Amino acid sequence: MTQNNALIYVVGIGPGDFDMITPQALEIMKSCDIIAGYEKYIELVKELVPGKILFYSGMGQELDRCQTCLLFAKEFGKSVALISSGDSGVYGMAGLMLETASGSGIEVKVIPGITAANSCAAILGAPLMNDYVNISLSDLMTEWEVIERRLKAACQGDFVVCIYNPASKKRPYNFKNACDILLKFKKPDTPAGFVRNIGRCEQKHAVMTLKEIRYCDDIDMFCTVIIGNSSSFILDGKIITSRGYKIEYKSEKKIPSAVH
Amino acid sequence: MTQNNALIYVVGIGPGDFDMITPQALEIMKSCDIIAGYEKYIELVKELVPGKILFYSGMGQELDRCQTCLLFAKEFGKSVALISSGDSGVYGMAGLMLETASGSGIEVKVIPGITAANSCAAILGAPLMNDYVNISLSDLMTEWEVIERRLKAACQGDFVVCIYNPASKKRPYNFKNACDILLKFKKPDTPAGFVRNIGRCEQKHAVMTLKEIRYCDDIDMFCTVIIGNSSSFILDGKIITSRGYKIEYKSEKKIPSAVH
Repeated sequence: MTQNNALIYVVGIGPGDFDMITPQALEIMKSCDIIAGYEKYIELVKELVPGKILFYSGMGQELDRCQTCLLFAKEFGKSVALISSGDSGVYGMAGLMLETASGSGIEVKVIPGITAANSCAAILGAPLMNDYVNISLSDLMTEWEVIERRLKAACQGDFVVCIYNPASKKRPYNFKNACDILLKFKKPDTPAGFVRNIGRCEQKHAVMTLKEIRYCDDIDMFCTVIIGNSSSFILDGKIITSRGYKIEYKSEKKIPSAVH
Repeated sequence: MTQNNALIYVVGIGPGDFDMITPQALEIMKSCDIIAGYEKYIELVKELVPGKILFYSGMGQELDRCQTCLLFAKEFGKSVALISSGDSGVYGMAGLMLETASGSGIEVKVIPGITAANSCAAILGAPLMNDYVNISLSDLMTEWEVIERRLKAACQGDFVVCIYNPASKKRPYNFKNACDILLKFKKPDTPAGFVRNIGRCEQKHAVMTLKEIRYCDDIDMFCTVIIGNSSSFILDGKIITSRGYKIEYKSEKKIPSAVH
């Protein structure tokens, strides 16, 4: 393969289950010379791409990883699939890889995947049926004041709130602090739920209220959390955010008019 | 198949390209007796599921569609895949189907897909790398005052804004009105972009500024629009929202430490 054909793809692999990786993402991984990514994600997919060169690095080495991918493409003429879990464009590697490769002559393409908001919502019911925000509580690269301002704005707009990176060992209180802000605006009985390890064998989820999730000790870095808005309710153990359809149940059985 | 095994799946088929339908969604469609949905989506997927019973209805008949799916499952003991484009849980059919089936004894499962925010973002670059909101400008079921309040709140939180249903024949001015609100808070040169017919053969996209997109006459109901935040910039014709990585380009070539 000549250098001019070399390309970098930033590939979202979805939540973890192989059957939630799009055929597009899988084909691109199979077509590339090198699979690069955070070590846990490489571990997850390596059986799907036997015989490939694997390059992995740890948390916090994102820039290093992008620079190495660029080196593979530009100096060695290799095609690279740089993988992110979920969607590579949502708190993933897409932006940094595009920035790193700028001016190099190496083209970068972003391949989307199912992000945690959507895979989490499907398990909890239908909490994202109306307008919502995605907020990460990681204050490694965003100041807590900015996060706080966003949580308040999300409440002022009566948005459903989907929380990424709710807590970690280094910042165990971020999630409870965030809930305290939400509780100033949203009712304590606003529906709330979380999913841990979405799409993995240890998947766990629960539906409760905002007040209850504030005191729930199960929320850690492997969780995605969704807090409803004023139109959300719990039905049969699932969270639904109403879009405003007027549901009038008909007593008679109707005959479908367009069955083929 | 007995009635007790009958199940309704609400399936997100992604933006349109077959290679962006997850294997999970495809397998479920293939395993069901009936494929139901808005007529254009059925048209899109019917070659993937030959021999299935197809039930389709038009825009505005969402409740009727859900009630008919329930009838198929409960009265005829059939399994049904009710499809939505994008993600079934984002402005799709998941919530209404869960509500309609409540109390019927028929289980409803939600199968996520890639929603327009993510497929649009991948084409435009990496605009959703940091916190963002999804807002629909359709005022059929949400009052314009609520939409306006949400647009303002999104600006106050310095969120990236992803706009669904920006305009239609019945509401041609909603998008320009929304831009006017955003322009009160965001700088006129804030990066903005749209994709029309994502994942279809007529796909088209453009990157410009917020001021320019306000006057762009290409925005219609087939478009998804993304407006950046204060950390967004345009690089090589793509929109990137910075996550805050400090990019220090190294002059020396580094030797990868974990290549296998």
